[in-house]
Amino acid sequence: MSALGDGRFGAVLDAEWSVGTRLHGGYLLAVLARAAGESAAGAGHPHVTAVSGTFVEPPEPGEAVASVRVLRVGRSVAQVRAVLAQEGRTRVEAHVTLGLLDDAGPWWSAHEPVRLPPEQECFLAPTDPPGAGMRVPLMAVVEERIDPEHLAFAFGAPSGHGVIASWQRLADGSDWDPLSLLVALDPVPPVSFDLGLAGWVPTIQLSAYIRRLPAPGPVRVRLAATDVGGDRMDEVAHVWDDKGRLVAQATQLAAVRVPADPNPWGRV
Amino acid sequence: MSALGDGRFGAVLDAEWSVGTRLHGGYLLAVLARAAGESAAGAGHPHVTAVSGTFVEPPEPGEAVASVRVLRVGRSVAQVRAVLAQEGRTRVEAHVTLGLLDDAGPWWSAHEPVRLPPEQECFLAPTDPPGAGMRVPLMAVVEERIDPEHLAFAFGAPSGHGVIASWQRLADGSDWDPLSLLVALDPVPPVSFDLGLAGWVPTIQLSAYIRRLPAPGPVRVRLAATDVGGDRMDEVAHVWDDKGRLVAQATQLAAVRVPADPNPWGRV
Repeated sequence: MSALGDGRFGAVLDAEWSVGTRLHGGYLLAVLARAAGESAAGAGHPHVTAVSGTFVEPPEPGEAVASVRVLRVGRSVAQVRAVLAQEGRTRVEAHVTLGLLDDAGPWWSAHEPVRLPPEQECFLAPTDPPGAGMRVPLMAVVEERIDPEHLAFAFGAPSGHGVIASWQRLADGSDWDPLSLLVALDPVPPVSFDLGLAGWVPTIQLSAYIRRLPAPGPVRVRLAATDVGGDRMDEVAHVWDDKGRLVAQATQLAAVRVPADPNPWGRV
Repeated sequence: MSALGDGRFGAVLDAEWSVGTRLHGGYLLAVLARAAGESAAGAGHPHVTAVSGTFVEPPEPGEAVASVRVLRVGRSVAQVRAVLAQEGRTRVEAHVTLGLLDDAGPWWSAHEPVRLPPEQECFLAPTDPPGAGMRVPLMAVVEERIDPEHLAFAFGAPSGHGVIASWQRLADGSDWDPLSLLVALDPVPPVSFDLGLAGWVPTIQLSAYIRRLPAPGPVRVRLAATDVGGDRMDEVAHVWDDKGRLVAQATQLAAVRVPADPNPWGRV
């Protein structure tokens, strides 16, 4: 990322971080959050703590410009608007909140970390999923091991629970950090697969909170839908680090095709 | 709200929608969502479906300007940036997604509506809470009846569950609509009260999704924290209409004072 002056940063969007031909939403938010961090550098707010992005038009891999406007630098937060543009057109806009994270445990937490079988008993998500009709290059940079319990969709028998849980590591051996956790928060496949909806689920809006610095090692990710209807689905993600602490959470609203003939295992 | 031209709208922020001396966050987002709707009017996207706001500086009651920039008008969504300013300073910025909602039930839903005693057995939240040291004018425009099970905090014995559930109606007898649901999604008191944290909990970022048009009648609201630590708390809100359908959901990140002596009923 190169500073172009006047709050503008040049970035090269890397096709590695793609699902099919589309760049991954969490990756795009990480690019914007990084530009926001560069721009508010030195203000004592080194970490992204919240990002909320609205996805306007899918960018292509290649050169892009991230434009940052600092809205406020306060005592405990800096707030920034960041816009990702290509060919002069807005592709993603985000509000980024920066602050200072630590690695202390939660003071109070409502949830236990999601239970998963050991990593080696989970299914390593492939870059070329059989029958998917597309490549998932992202799976070469993120090692995702899905709980076999949530894999029934791959055998044509989705559980209908609307949950997919997995282990995730960065494939190059790097530890997770606040920026890369934005990728972990937007897992592939979408949880709609566990509901029998096999189609593409483009994100409309995604809000992520980074709660603390993750410990080295893999993270555990639980993705769950709350409600599907009216061509819309929400997905709620929680990420725990290797010490069992909640390190990140996200909610997204995505477009989804609901079959004309509702599936009988829908609860409502 | 008056059109000033060039995507700018004059608004008068009404002190009725306050908690203490601060204007309510959901109300401020509704002002921005309304300006966004005016600006994208005629585009076939009459309803707010998502709002994500970043709270920069508290505005005062009185005149303010909402400036709207339409980012994209698509087939099923319009995406808008909206900025609320006073005295030339940005107070709240939001991204607003507009679309077409209906009142059809969900195709699939993970949650049953929160269970509540009948309205008349719940506690009507007062505008002058005893011992609070401040007025809550909002409680004169929103009739909120809190489940007595979640009221133990008012007697000095917070449950520690991190949940507050209530019935809500608009006091003037109006039915809920997509804009007013933004107020229902940011209930008072904050759920930190149920965790024994009595202080002010200013919202940093709030993302709301409106999922369908609500039926006439009261709504049921469940507010819950996921994680508290590092001076931050999240609050997750779900709102069901009188027919038991999820009509709205929200997540917010708020600043919170964590006592130096952690309470022993913290789970982690």
